[in-house]
Amino acid sequence: MAQHDRSSDTVKAAKTTFVTEITPRSHDFSQWYLDVVRRAELADYSPVKGCMVIRPYGYAIWEQIQQAFDSEFKRAGHVNAYFPLFIPESFLHKEAEHVEGFAPQVAYVTRAGGEELEEPLVVRPTSEAIIGSMYSKWIQSWRDLPVLINQWANVVRWEKVTRPFLRTTEFLWQEGHTAHETHDEAEAEALMILDIYARVAEDVLGMPVVKGQKSESEKFAGALRTYSIEALMGDGRALQAGTSHNLGQNFAKAFDITFQGRDKSVQHVWGTSWGVSTRLVGGVIMTHGDDSGLVLPPRVAPYQVVIVPIGRDDWRETVLPKAREIRQQLAGAGIRVTLDERDERPGWKFAEWELRGVPLRLEIGPKDIEKSTVRVARRDTGAKQDLSMNGLPTPITELLDRIQRDLFERARAYRDERTQRVASYDAFKAAMEGRPGFVIAAWCGSAECEAQIKADTQATLRNMPQEGITGKTAPTGNCVRCDNPARYEAWFAKAY
Amino acid sequence: MAQHDRSSDTVKAAKTTFVTEITPRSHDFSQWYLDVVRRAELADYSPVKGCMVIRPYGYAIWEQIQQAFDSEFKRAGHVNAYFPLFIPESFLHKEAEHVEGFAPQVAYVTRAGGEELEEPLVVRPTSEAIIGSMYSKWIQSWRDLPVLINQWANVVRWEKVTRPFLRTTEFLWQEGHTAHETHDEAEAEALMILDIYARVAEDVLGMPVVKGQKSESEKFAGALRTYSIEALMGDGRALQAGTSHNLGQNFAKAFDITFQGRDKSVQHVWGTSWGVSTRLVGGVIMTHGDDSGLVLPPRVAPYQVVIVPIGRDDWRETVLPKAREIRQQLAGAGIRVTLDERDERPGWKFAEWELRGVPLRLEIGPKDIEKSTVRVARRDTGAKQDLSMNGLPTPITELLDRIQRDLFERARAYRDERTQRVASYDAFKAAMEGRPGFVIAAWCGSAECEAQIKADTQATLRNMPQEGITGKTAPTGNCVRCDNPARYEAWFAKAY
Repeated sequence: MAQHDRSSDTVKAAKTTFVTEITPRSHDFSQWYLDVVRRAELADYSPVKGCMVIRPYGYAIWEQIQQAFDSEFKRAGHVNAYFPLFIPESFLHKEAEHVEGFAPQVAYVTRAGGEELEEPLVVRPTSEAIIGSMYSKWIQSWRDLPVLINQWANVVRWEKVTRPFLRTTEFLWQEGHTAHETHDEAEAEALMILDIYARVAEDVLGMPVVKGQKSESEKFAGALRTYSIEALMGDGRALQAGTSHNLGQNFAKAFDITFQGRDKSVQHVWGTSWGVSTRLVGGVIMTHGDDSGLVLPPRVAPYQVVIVPIGRDDWRETVLPKAREIRQQLAGAGIRVTLDERDERPGWKFAEWELRGVPLRLEIGPKDIEKSTVRVARRDTGAKQDLSMNGLPTPITELLDRIQRDLFERARAYRDERTQRVASYDAFKAAMEGRPGFVIAAWCGSAECEAQIKADTQATLRNMPQEGITGKTAPTGNCVRCDNPARYEAWFAKAY
Repeated sequence: MAQHDRSSDTVKAAKTTFVTEITPRSHDFSQWYLDVVRRAELADYSPVKGCMVIRPYGYAIWEQIQQAFDSEFKRAGHVNAYFPLFIPESFLHKEAEHVEGFAPQVAYVTRAGGEELEEPLVVRPTSEAIIGSMYSKWIQSWRDLPVLINQWANVVRWEKVTRPFLRTTEFLWQEGHTAHETHDEAEAEALMILDIYARVAEDVLGMPVVKGQKSESEKFAGALRTYSIEALMGDGRALQAGTSHNLGQNFAKAFDITFQGRDKSVQHVWGTSWGVSTRLVGGVIMTHGDDSGLVLPPRVAPYQVVIVPIGRDDWRETVLPKAREIRQQLAGAGIRVTLDERDERPGWKFAEWELRGVPLRLEIGPKDIEKSTVRVARRDTGAKQDLSMNGLPTPITELLDRIQRDLFERARAYRDERTQRVASYDAFKAAMEGRPGFVIAAWCGSAECEAQIKADTQATLRNMPQEGITGKTAPTGNCVRCDNPARYEAWFAKAY
């Protein structure tokens, strides 16, 4: 009877119900994304324009991502703290480029506690200003350095066009803010964080990324240099997945953050700041998802395994006890597992958990119990196999590791297929008109060429992988646009 | 030579430096509190009036508290989510009592993205309104119930008089919001959460609490009933340490949260909400601290053990390698340990870590290495003993457990000594004029008597322990104030 309920008819019928509600990915990627976010209950629109609600399943993914980054930051010597949500308006004006970059997006509290405020308060779009003002109090001597602080917080940037996770008026993120004695220490910190970002993105989110430096026109408002990790989404558009800034002494000068150096002279500190946000949840969806919905890498999956009992009407008596035993066994081995005990048909449950991207499904029916096996189905490939009920945690853990690797490799192969090096502007334009992806091209370094490329192709300069303290590789040839000698090799793409 | 550096002279000299910076607790409790917060680097004032910065050491305590609650909530079937910071002003007005309670404390965003907003947005003082509006979308059937959601978030309430951790304009908290089919289920949830609050407060924070129901005049704006846990601080004043509300159907009616019941009829859900906040960090300070500063219960201590190397100038060669070995050994056993490698005198380090409340100090000097022992000093009692370096994690873990229990017992004994039952109003007033604490008295239930007691004695009704679903114990005698028959036995105190 297990065979009966597992029949493709049942599954197909149930699937149809779901699939009709999800636009096929190949048909309309953008609508598919919104459908997955809604149907998998990752997020919902709120009554406040541009602000989303992160629903429990979406938030559980974020919690996994948070934990992965948080432990890496702490391992590298960082500590968490919390700074105020509000920033006096005048503070934002202290760093000229910073205010220019953020002022148009800012929300102001003008009235509070029944009174008009003398000075409006800005709802933080980022915290360099408020943190800078504190660092100027806390830092006196080179002995106080480095200061390595991170905060997990909400920030607000008024956006005209929003999209769940990818661009919302309020979002959650971490923002690291460090202060150092020298330029080189700040630079090393910014690049070390970039390495952490890339490692977690690849190893935990299964999302291959390109590490590199941003161009002058794309750098953070107030930074000396900005580095980023860039990923390629399933529609061939790039996603800036994290940024790390060497702030130089810009904020130190604006907020008077000085220290007495080893040579007794008074100097300004060298700063960094860096952040990743709930945008990464969007990145996971768009990197791995398929027509049936979400596909989650095991390391970010709220549930790595779902157990679905199969059987006739008496499944609660015949199958459920064994299913619970197996749940216990897997949970005891540290596997995140859920057992679907709802009164629904197995086929309905299969489709629901596929939609929600659970990496492995375990089916247990009376026949399986007789044979002392379970049937295991992979979400990513659909491959099925029977495993002995004895010692299940070991092969399940191995399968989860395999899925984690395979998802990353699949995403990397996809990225590599859609990455091409071009030597002429015509080839650049042709590439951007065809199947989109990354285009690598030599660039002279002028903002004018960068802007013209964007105007002609909609592609923006994502980053320059060889730049930074690690030394730059001389590009071959001349600028793809102006034909003057090239200074950089840059990655371009249409981007989110 | 270890003996030399450990001499009481050295320690005393160093201590003096610190102690002069902390007002003695017995002299001025309030100033002592502020001194500890500042000197132990728990929090700092920010440039925004009423908003504090939670510094890394204070935040690390909060992280321990968060983890303890979060795992309890999850064990009880709750999931985390995230709702918007902003609430349309009109939403706040939907529940009449709610708006009356919160409107005076609210901050408004009136301008954003370069424009005046058509409708001002409220910065959430609490999230019943915005969450209610979402629940009305999500909940359709009794099958969707219960909804058991928690969120970790910042909230803003404009306060005239603020105090780090205890009362700040912005603070961090968790707010649970649940929806149920029946009144009794909501009541059971509110009381179950109250039990979690009490258990974590007592077992993790070492802070004895009284569980009970709030009076009508002290209940949450919009609730049917409010329950609280109340603790007694070192100055004899009470701290409301957490609240759990049975919201009845008030918000369900205001936000139209309905479901089709098992009998097919359309009904309003029954709600609860509940929260604890960064105020608890203040509670820990004021429950356990002493003249030398902070005293942290091991379960919330960022560092449970600090290792201080002792020795002459060559301690880096003679002592440090062994100290590092021991740090590894303890860290490997899951003990949170730090090793103070700074170039400062041991006495200076002793005083510093006492100030910061680290439960156990391990001293290692050349003599100790010869004998293969370490000297261990308890922060709470000052008691010292020598332990063999071999198998150190076991006795250290036992000592930490012992300290955890002892701190709780000490706080409970203190609380019990300062709790008295009074039968007359004169005795009540005398109690409140003398050494303050809890006063238990019979109360008729009238708001008038409650208000008069407050006017006469400054004591507020903290809660009524026997009330609620667990059934109420009939109080003996008549109302302490009006002499009419009493309906409740209530706990009163001057409070934060």
